[in-house]
Amino acid sequence: MNKGERTRQTILDAAVAMACEAGFESLSIGALADRVGMSKSGLFAHFGSREDLQIAAIEAAAERFTELVFLPALKAPRGVGRLEALLGNWLTWVDRGGWGGGCPLQSAALEFDDKPGPVRDVVIAHYRQLERELTRTVRLAVEQGEFRADLDLGQFVFDMLGIVFVTYYRRRLLTDANTRAMALRSFSDLISRSRTIPATH
Amino acid sequence: MNKGERTRQTILDAAVAMACEAGFESLSIGALADRVGMSKSGLFAHFGSREDLQIAAIEAAAERFTELVFLPALKAPRGVGRLEALLGNWLTWVDRGGWGGGCPLQSAALEFDDKPGPVRDVVIAHYRQLERELTRTVRLAVEQGEFRADLDLGQFVFDMLGIVFVTYYRRRLLTDANTRAMALRSFSDLISRSRTIPATH
Repeated sequence: MNKGERTRQTILDAAVAMACEAGFESLSIGALADRVGMSKSGLFAHFGSREDLQIAAIEAAAERFTELVFLPALKAPRGVGRLEALLGNWLTWVDRGGWGGGCPLQSAALEFDDKPGPVRDVVIAHYRQLERELTRTVRLAVEQGEFRADLDLGQFVFDMLGIVFVTYYRRRLLTDANTRAMALRSFSDLISRSRTIPATH
Repeated sequence: MNKGERTRQTILDAAVAMACEAGFESLSIGALADRVGMSKSGLFAHFGSREDLQIAAIEAAAERFTELVFLPALKAPRGVGRLEALLGNWLTWVDRGGWGGGCPLQSAALEFDDKPGPVRDVVIAHYRQLERELTRTVRLAVEQGEFRADLDLGQFVFDMLGIVFVTYYRRRLLTDANTRAMALRSFSDLISRSRTIPATH
C-alpha cells in the first residue's frame, strides 16, 4: 500500500466505525473529517460525494467480512466441515464485527431496504453474492455425498441465514450469553436433516 | 377517544411512519411538528422530550403489532393451528408493517442494540414479552399433545424468530416474491419435527 491507499484505508475504517455507531445515514464528509482530523477538502479528494463514501464504507465492510468469515473457512475440507467453519466464523463476527459494534452489513440491509438508489444496489449486490457463495458451499457438501442429492440448496441457505439473523438480535439486543449454543444446536439440526441418511429427532 | 387522545394518536402514527422511513434517530420534536402541521410547543404538551417521543412511538408500534399479529391468532384453536395463524399474520405484517415501510420494531432492535438507555430498555422489554408470548403459544401445543413433551420451547422460539428475520430481509431488501413460500416451508418443517411422532425427511 502506498501512502494514499493507507490514508484511504484509515478513513474507511473510521467511516465504518461511525456507521456501526449511528448508521450509514449519519455518515457525512464533514462529520468524518472531524473524526479523522482531516480537512473536508482532503476527504473530498478521496470521496467525491457522501454517496460515494457510503458505498466505499459498505464495500470495505464486505471485504472485511470475506477476510474474517469466508476465507478462513476455505481451509476446512469441502462439505459439512467447511459449512461448520463458516458458521463458526460468522458467529464470532456477529460478536465482534471487526469494529466492536455488530455487523455493519446487517445495519446497511435494514437502513437501505426501502431507499432506492446506488447505495441500496451495492447492499443488494453484497447479499446476492453472499447467497451465491453459500449456495456453492452447500452444493459441495452434496457433491461430496454428505448431503442428499435432492436437497433444496436455496432452502438450506434460507434456514442458515435465519440462524445468523436471530443470533444477531439475541446477542446484540438481548445480550444473551446462551445464544451461540442455541445457534450451534439449530445448525447441527439443519445439517442432520440434510444428510444422506435422514437422522431421527 | 377524546380529542386529546385522538391528536396524540395522529402524532404517534406520523412518528412511527417517520421512524420507518429514516429510523428512530431521525425523530425529533421539530421535524415531527413540521410533518403533522403543529407547533413545537403543541407537541411538547404531548411529549416532554425527544426520548419520550421515541418511546411512545415504539410502544405504539408494539400495540399495532399485538392488534394485527397476536390478537387475531387467538381465534385459532390452541396448538399448531394458532402457531400457524400467528406466523401467517406475522409474514403479512412484514410485507405491510401497517405503515408501508417494514416493521418499525425490527428497525428499533438494530438501531438501539448498542445504545444503552431508556429507549433501548423499552425495545428489549418488547422483545422479551414477545418471546414469552411465543413460548406460551408453543407450550399450548405441547399441552394439547400435538408437540412432544420433551420439546425445547426456547429452541423452537429461536428457530421461529430466525424464519421471520430472514423473511424480513429477503422481502424488504431483495424483494424476492418467493420468500413467503420459503418461510412457510421452513415453518412447516419446524412443526413436523416438533410433533409427537417424528416425521422423516
